[in-house]
Amino acid sequence: MRKIEHIGIAVTDLEKSNEVFSRLLGKKHFKTERVEGEGVETSFFQVGETKVELLQATRSDSPIAKYLGKKGEGVHHIAFDVEDIHAEVERLKQEGFEILNEIPKEGADNKLVVFLHPRSTNGVLVELCQEKK
Amino acid sequence: MRKIEHIGIAVTDLEKSNEVFSRLLGKKHFKTERVEGEGVETSFFQVGETKVELLQATRSDSPIAKYLGKKGEGVHHIAFDVEDIHAEVERLKQEGFEILNEIPKEGADNKLVVFLHPRSTNGVLVELCQEKK
Repeated sequence: MRKIEHIGIAVTDLEKSNEVFSRLLGKKHFKTERVEGEGVETSFFQVGETKVELLQATRSDSPIAKYLGKKGEGVHHIAFDVEDIHAEVERLKQEGFEILNEIPKEGADNKLVVFLHPRSTNGVLVELCQEKK
Repeated sequence: MRKIEHIGIAVTDLEKSNEVFSRLLGKKHFKTERVEGEGVETSFFQVGETKVELLQATRSDSPIAKYLGKKGEGVHHIAFDVEDIHAEVERLKQEGFEILNEIPKEGADNKLVVFLHPRSTNGVLVELCQEKK
């Protein structure tokens, strides 16, 4: 856990939210990216060493669509940058955390990602992410 | 908005959550602090340039107690480090954001803090914080 890689925020209208966050942060998003596997369109802002990732669902069975239906807009997950995602998954399993996908999957922004179930982490959906080599 | 200063997480049992986050992050919290004005006991972990702040209510009318009653444990706010909090409040007012307290108040960790209403920021409770001189 070297740094907070990004904070994921669920939004209903990416275009509108890009505009809100560019006024908030005083800068424009630096890229957008669609992740088909997760059913999301994403947008990234840089703040120091951390990114703010806005997430809009691209289909109704997307995890983000379900989240929005249940909780509405807001912080969806916190992503931690790790050097070796397999070693970190192993360590966290030993520590008793509930891993949602033990096999890392493709995330946005050239990352391998693993999620921990929020019920083992005080209600926080935790993502581990490792830059793909 | 120079960096994410901290991520505030509402918890019901600070001692238990300190233990959870020390297993998650692989390190111990580096301090605890009670903020009487906000009715919270806090605990801080360092991750890169950002802190994870756990927040437990110390009385039933604390904003954190209300949050836990409504939403349960999870991410409560995102705090951005600013150089000049008064200038930033002025800028964000001009940009149409809803400021919860225009006069900065005393936060934990030697900070002056201002909150923005989540309804103007996509459901995210945003805190501005400036190190006190």
